[in-house]
Amino acid sequence: MVTCSPFKRVSSLVTQLRNGAILGSTEASLKVLNEIKDASRECTLKEFRKYLQEAVPSFIEGRPTSILMRNLVRKYLEQILRAGKEGGFRSVVEKTPETVDSIVKEVEEVKKAVVEVGSRRLSDGATLMIHSYSSTVIRLVMKAFEEGKKFKVFVTESRPIGEGRITASVLGRAGLDVTLIVDSAVRYVMKRVTDVLFSADAVAANGAVINKVGTSVVALAAKEARVRTYVVAGTYKFGLETVFGELVEGMVLNDASLIMHPEQATELAGKVLVRAPLFDVTPPEYIDAIITEVGVVAPQAIPLVIKEKYGWPPKVARVNDLLKEVVGIE
Amino acid sequence: MVTCSPFKRVSSLVTQLRNGAILGSTEASLKVLNEIKDASRECTLKEFRKYLQEAVPSFIEGRPTSILMRNLVRKYLEQILRAGKEGGFRSVVEKTPETVDSIVKEVEEVKKAVVEVGSRRLSDGATLMIHSYSSTVIRLVMKAFEEGKKFKVFVTESRPIGEGRITASVLGRAGLDVTLIVDSAVRYVMKRVTDVLFSADAVAANGAVINKVGTSVVALAAKEARVRTYVVAGTYKFGLETVFGELVEGMVLNDASLIMHPEQATELAGKVLVRAPLFDVTPPEYIDAIITEVGVVAPQAIPLVIKEKYGWPPKVARVNDLLKEVVGIE
Amino acid sequence: MVTCSPFKRVSSLVTQLRNGAILGSTEASLKVLNEIKDASRECTLKEFRKYLQEAVPSFIEGRPTSILMRNLVRKYLEQILRAGKEGGFRSVVEKTPETVDSIVKEVEEVKKAVVEVGSRRLSDGATLMIHSYSSTVIRLVMKAFEEGKKFKVFVTESRPIGEGRITASVLGRAGLDVTLIVDSAVRYVMKRVTDVLFSADAVAANGAVINKVGTSVVALAAKEARVRTYVVAGTYKFGLETVFGELVEGMVLNDASLIMHPEQATELAGKVLVRAPLFDVTPPEYIDAIITEVGVVAPQAIPLVIKEKYGWPPKVARVNDLLKEVVGIE
Amino acid sequence: MVTCSPFKRVSSLVTQLRNGAILGSTEASLKVLNEIKDASRECTLKEFRKYLQEAVPSFIEGRPTSILMRNLVRKYLEQILRAGKEGGFRSVVEKTPETVDSIVKEVEEVKKAVVEVGSRRLSDGATLMIHSYSSTVIRLVMKAFEEGKKFKVFVTESRPIGEGRITASVLGRAGLDVTLIVDSAVRYVMKRVTDVLFSADAVAANGAVINKVGTSVVALAAKEARVRTYVVAGTYKFGLETVFGELVEGMVLNDASLIMHPEQATELAGKVLVRAPLFDVTPPEYIDAIITEVGVVAPQAIPLVIKEKYGWPPKVARVNDLLKEVVGIE
Amino acid sequence: MVTCSPFKRVSSLVTQLRNGAILGSTEASLKVLNEIKDASRECTLKEFRKYLQEAVPSFIEGRPTSILMRNLVRKYLEQILRAGKEGGFRSVVEKTPETVDSIVKEVEEVKKAVVEVGSRRLSDGATLMIHSYSSTVIRLVMKAFEEGKKFKVFVTESRPIGEGRITASVLGRAGLDVTLIVDSAVRYVMKRVTDVLFSADAVAANGAVINKVGTSVVALAAKEARVRTYVVAGTYKFGLETVFGELVEGMVLNDASLIMHPEQATELAGKVLVRAPLFDVTPPEYIDAIITEVGVVAPQAIPLVIKEKYGWPPKVARVNDLLKEVVGIE
Amino acid sequence: MVTCSPFKRVSSLVTQLRNGAILGSTEASLKVLNEIKDASRECTLKEFRKYLQEAVPSFIEGRPTSILMRNLVRKYLEQILRAGKEGGFRSVVEKTPETVDSIVKEVEEVKKAVVEVGSRRLSDGATLMIHSYSSTVIRLVMKAFEEGKKFKVFVTESRPIGEGRITASVLGRAGLDVTLIVDSAVRYVMKRVTDVLFSADAVAANGAVINKVGTSVVALAAKEARVRTYVVAGTYKFGLETVFGELVEGMVLNDASLIMHPEQATELAGKVLVRAPLFDVTPPEYIDAIITEVGVVAPQAIPLVIKEKYGWPPKVARVNDLLKEVVGIE
Repeated sequence: MVTCSPFKRVSSLVTQLRNGAILGSTEASLKVLNEIKDASRECTLKEFRKYLQEAVPSFIEGRPTSILMRNLVRKYLEQILRAGKEGGFRSVVEKTPETVDSIVKEVEEVKKAVVEVGSRRLSDGATLMIHSYSSTVIRLVMKAFEEGKKFKVFVTESRPIGEGRITASVLGRAGLDVTLIVDSAVRYVMKRVTDVLFSADAVAANGAVINKVGTSVVALAAKEARVRTYVVAGTYKFGLETVFGELVEGMVLNDASLIMHPEQATELAGKVLVRAPLFDVTPPEYIDAIITEVGVVAPQAIPLVIKEKYGWPPKVARVNDLLKEVVGIE
Repeated sequence: MVTCSPFKRVSSLVTQLRNGAILGSTEASLKVLNEIKDASRECTLKEFRKYLQEAVPSFIEGRPTSILMRNLVRKYLEQILRAGKEGGFRSVVEKTPETVDSIVKEVEEVKKAVVEVGSRRLSDGATLMIHSYSSTVIRLVMKAFEEGKKFKVFVTESRPIGEGRITASVLGRAGLDVTLIVDSAVRYVMKRVTDVLFSADAVAANGAVINKVGTSVVALAAKEARVRTYVVAGTYKFGLETVFGELVEGMVLNDASLIMHPEQATELAGKVLVRAPLFDVTPPEYIDAIITEVGVVAPQAIPLVIKEKYGWPPKVARVNDLLKEVVGIE
Repeated sequence: MVTCSPFKRVSSLVTQLRNGAILGSTEASLKVLNEIKDASRECTLKEFRKYLQEAVPSFIEGRPTSILMRNLVRKYLEQILRAGKEGGFRSVVEKTPETVDSIVKEVEEVKKAVVEVGSRRLSDGATLMIHSYSSTVIRLVMKAFEEGKKFKVFVTESRPIGEGRITASVLGRAGLDVTLIVDSAVRYVMKRVTDVLFSADAVAANGAVINKVGTSVVALAAKEARVRTYVVAGTYKFGLETVFGELVEGMVLNDASLIMHPEQATELAGKVLVRAPLFDVTPPEYIDAIITEVGVVAPQAIPLVIKEKYGWPPKVARVNDLLKEVVGIE
Repeated sequence: MVTCSPFKRVSSLVTQLRNGAILGSTEASLKVLNEIKDASRECTLKEFRKYLQEAVPSFIEGRPTSILMRNLVRKYLEQILRAGKEGGFRSVVEKTPETVDSIVKEVEEVKKAVVEVGSRRLSDGATLMIHSYSSTVIRLVMKAFEEGKKFKVFVTESRPIGEGRITASVLGRAGLDVTLIVDSAVRYVMKRVTDVLFSADAVAANGAVINKVGTSVVALAAKEARVRTYVVAGTYKFGLETVFGELVEGMVLNDASLIMHPEQATELAGKVLVRAPLFDVTPPEYIDAIITEVGVVAPQAIPLVIKEKYGWPPKVARVNDLLKEVVGIE
Repeated sequence: MVTCSPFKRVSSLVTQLRNGAILGSTEASLKVLNEIKDASRECTLKEFRKYLQEAVPSFIEGRPTSILMRNLVRKYLEQILRAGKEGGFRSVVEKTPETVDSIVKEVEEVKKAVVEVGSRRLSDGATLMIHSYSSTVIRLVMKAFEEGKKFKVFVTESRPIGEGRITASVLGRAGLDVTLIVDSAVRYVMKRVTDVLFSADAVAANGAVINKVGTSVVALAAKEARVRTYVVAGTYKFGLETVFGELVEGMVLNDASLIMHPEQATELAGKVLVRAPLFDVTPPEYIDAIITEVGVVAPQAIPLVIKEKYGWPPKVARVNDLLKEVVGIE
Repeated sequence: MVTCSPFKRVSSLVTQLRNGAILGSTEASLKVLNEIKDASRECTLKEFRKYLQEAVPSFIEGRPTSILMRNLVRKYLEQILRAGKEGGFRSVVEKTPETVDSIVKEVEEVKKAVVEVGSRRLSDGATLMIHSYSSTVIRLVMKAFEEGKKFKVFVTESRPIGEGRITASVLGRAGLDVTLIVDSAVRYVMKRVTDVLFSADAVAANGAVINKVGTSVVALAAKEARVRTYVVAGTYKFGLETVFGELVEGMVLNDASLIMHPEQATELAGKVLVRAPLFDVTPPEYIDAIITEVGVVAPQAIPLVIKEKYGWPPKVARVNDLLKEVVGIE
């Protein structure tokens, strides 16, 4: 029987992933990595093997749109596999903490570089629109603000979860001129906006961007009004599998209580279906540029950036295959 | 001192108008007319004079986008003015109930005709999207449904008030195949939609439509995907003053508690501004046709329809001038 | 038993209507009127009553898109009904020839006026594209040509029937510089075109145009390349019923032999479905102007033109009701 | 031999019309009317007959795009013809001054009404762009400014004549916040603009607008950036003949010295062709509304406005026919 | 005198290439390679030298749009040149069969990889539109179908040759739900389509795609309706010369009998010109992604893919220069 | 005290750069390089150090949009720094002439290659539009013309400086069919144009192009009319810093005398602001391809081309840092 506490936390973490309770795809991915690290420390060798076998796939299925999580877990598995091949499964366990730490550190550095590049892009006096929540976007805007640029910022509520409220309160508390609007007011205020900023859960090989639902609506309204649109996304969010034709899976919540009062939801069960897709796809032609740690490029130039990091076509081991190999180590 | 109860209800009704608590512009307008009728019965002659002088302008200012209310009040005042010129202010009071009743009846007939015309327009098997709430749109869809046409219906939540929930529950209870979505998911589902339906608070002389905020976003996403868009609006909603250059005033709620939890709203007061515009303007090129009681026409053909009812340029007495005249009757 | 020859020709005429064998909606409509005239002369009184009762509805159902036919038959019935009310059914029979003749004459005059107005619109040196076949469009181009204007004309084949070949041969024989192209080459040549011309089977109240399939493709490609697009359509083609929300019914041929060799069609029966819609709908925003006998107007201004002829909303008796009345005359 | 001085001024006035030296189509038209008035006073009866015969057609040919001039001259001729039919040609001469005066007065009233309607349309705080010069547009902006509305105004230089400099200096002297830009900078500043204003030389029956060259470029850039575009044009500028298919003739100056230094022009004669079209055509879909004295309407609703003044189809006598009749009076 | 049979087949093969009788650009290219192989076996050494000198250029001129053929022939020549430099012309002859075989095999492998990548891209339940005929597209769809995905497929007739009939019958016989439509019905059915698929004769360096005429029309209609559009093209179809500014030559058939009945064609000869362009150019902005054997990329990312195979700028020997070298070998 | 004449020329050269007096960004950049060369010869060692320290930054600030100048100066500094590290500052001085010469030569070769590639792209019989002045564009067109291709060329005046007059006179004198138009006439003539050509001051990493003001207007009008648009720009004009988020700075002249007569300018000083931006930004979606010395690519593929020359992300030393290093050499 499995008794280590990381294992017990698995199902609740999966639920959080599924219903979008962890804001931001970076936070969710690092959370998962750190859970693996904790498991390597707190669980027995046998438990950890089982953890890798069961918990990791369920995390990935819990947020299928998060290419970042998939890419980071893949990176962890590739590195740990090498360790395991040399030192056996014990080595897998022992090397996990430092491996996770080095990946976390790398993610932080990538993020810092993205923030650096992106903050240069914002002009003093700009009027920004930020859709939903992203710690990278917030840091990027904060950096430019701290360097003395002044902005007016519109933030969308971002239903059903409403994480735009967090974005607004963080920036508002820091002293920026922030206005929170309902999602359907994006076109109403768009004429005054100069730059739209959002993050990505995944960027496909042809430049399409998967992000919080409503992103494609904001981008469409921005295009209509000649407003520049930037996607802020480190290269860890680029969907390597999409190079080979795979589609990024979407996520839809059908939980009526997200939109309705619980009583109403109960009463209308079976009569009104509630659909809250968490993500949508924004076509590349509605995006002016993607801000990565290695430069600002048109979305159509994504393959070049993938190539620089992974070769072209990129070598992509499947996470499940890697897992099987790692777990199979004696 | 004024003691009749209609007078006491004025400020609470104005508040309801201001914050959109009365769903649908027809309901709000008829509510106001019936309040005037009640006042003519329950108040003294002197009180009623004061009621006309004070309550009526405050109703109109309470919902400035509602061209319907303005047009119906104007109609009431024009008719009652004639009565008053003959029989004095007593006659104004005495004729008010039947005048209101005849206008209410006419509105009902117009609505019935609009529903009739519009329900023919829907094809069996269509997938509809309805934004926000409108009793006329609901009746129109119900009529076609009762005549045997089958539909799939997407309804938007319509933040901040969320009146789409009412639309969804009415249609869902009646047995239609209804899905409620968040506002930012309109583009996500749009590819599957065949017809978009919404009402109007006002239709301007150049064919622009003022309606619940988000309408222009839905119409834009529909245009992008080649989906037909119909505005359902009896001619009483046509803005006669816009013929002469006046702009329909917008309404914006700045009540943070509409989007935030009260505590958060309190804490962030002065740091985050909350803007919830209640209405936006949809340009005529995003609308395929306006469904009126006298036919289905392109939005640009609105002047013809105005002309048939009011001449061209239409004779439009200002509500305030009419009020002064009526109130001035001995 | 019915023995008069017009009656015997009914089913073959209906077939011709159904499969588009009669080119041009004007030709088809006049053919039907003249058949009614022949029937009034060659059939007995009892047979003619039956003819009206059975043949006329089947003609209209044979080409449901032809608003012209419906409008002309309605006109005939309205006039003959008046005659019948005075002089009984005998009078219906006797007055039919002259009634038909006067309508035919009026159609000719309308056509002449349309040709007059439209031919002024063409500039010397223009490069025209004509989709499908229309006797009015041909006469319009010929008139301008005879007045000394030079054109280059591209004509589409217009599959599946290929009536563009007729258009090309008529104009080519007359000495114009004509090039026949396959339908899918419209975008290939569009950059060189200055004006697109086509006719209409019906014009809806909101300015949408129903015409030979492919019209909307040509109009889309013209819009993309900033080429002017004119619809040539006398007001008899305006769909009065569409004012009241009715949709113009489409026509689709599922006859595989239209596209395949008969043998192949037989072999693939049940394996490959063949769909040859005869008509499509062009939205008003792809049409620069409609050329009518009372002027050149934007498609959105159609209601005005309807109003000038029929009032607004137009008084429209249903053809079936009129038929019943006429047939019921003693 | 003709010796009266109005006759001597004809050729120089025609030249001024031809090269656009008289700014604004209203000024040019009233100038012509007043010249006719002067001729009726200063010339002999015989000379005036000749004046009508020769000068008037040359004025109209001098500025063929000016529908206003054509419409006003037509109006003058229609009225004077009635006088002449009663009182002979002497009466034509005698009635000319008061007829001209009444038309001039009417034009002034129309202009005043247009200014009234249009000034209501401008919102306080708007950023306007004005292309070229128009006395009506200037008055409209001035009226709104004098009523307390504040604007920022961009004015285009409007090459080759550069009349935007006049517009800028009039508004700048009056105290508005005015910036003069080169024509090719319209897109550069457009994102900041909220409303574009321009006048018209002619408005065609399908809503297309003929105005100073570059207007269609400004309107295109405005459309691209979701900026509202208003045409300011009294109904006297509506092209009645265009209802019947006639095209408004364009005007092109080929005078190299307009763009080049005279020496360069001489040197490059025969090597470089200089084309300075004075007018271009803006399609109705790039115009939000036309501001007339009888209301603000979509360009597609022009036929309705024409109808209200002239019937539909409008009765339009040809200016040349009217002239012949008037001149033929004994 | 040349007597080997491959030489005798040259002119008939060139004719087939010229009039599009060999369906699909891959089939045509492999056919040519195999003919060269046959010639190396069946002709004398002297004859083969002449074959290379005369037949090969005429094949390439026979289908100038086929970049594939040019690229494959170039590859063959480059390899055989190396052999010839070592072993003389005898070696050229002897090595030709295995060189051709290895290229054919490589093409097959590329095709298989493209099919693999592309079949992953199709979602179960999709409604596809396929324009014209391509063996790769057919295999791609078949593979996805065989793996259990269900589709509805619309296939265009693809005039003048009508090769869509082949596509439809292959897929229909295999059990897919196939509907064959005329080319001009693409917009009529487009609203129901989710994915458009077509092949390419050539892909230019800036992402423009040369394919069977009508492709650009289908892509335009797809763009208008927000339908995804995929080009299926192995990298052998990328136009290396276009990197250096060369334009891909088009092909136009002027054979009237393609569209007209032979008799009619004869009669109208000199009166009606018939133009049947075989190919058109689809701009990159109408294409969502290109499916290659090395990944799914935006059309604008083509240079990257070229670079991976050929370096950047790619080293491209001219086919004619290579030929001269090979033929010149002793 | 500094007495060498290159130093004395600095401020006048900076002024010329600032007001656009040196036509073409290549000319301006080479002029600056040659001035440095002259300074290395004519100034003392001490003076030259000061020249590098003061003159070079002021040149770059004088034309901040010119990425070419920045890139060439960077190249010079990188090479000279190496020399200086070996041989001290004396070596910097001595090696400057040959370093400059080799860079100038390389620029010439790049230009030649661009002209070569681009001239292949033009089809015989094309109608070109050239905006403003560029020696490379002129040579490209001349080369194609000399090889026997015939063109019709429209050239824009290009206010405020009017350098289009130079373009027109050079091409006109060479015998091409040239028409000079005012900037606002671009849409008027665009329907007849097949290819638009312009140069660039800078190309950003996401494909946006900075060029003479009005370029984006021409490109927009070209897009609207389906006209191909080519940017002619060697890779030396690619903005390496933009990869890292930096924005290319714009240049605006506020000199009223550019647009107004000096007197008028004086009189209206303080009343009318004159803004003459010299450059604007054209978004990549309005550009069909960029013609570089290493191939014709979509603007979105710019990063690939940058990578081939500088690696990705490119190593970019800041000009100021390099300067400091060079100047600091003993």
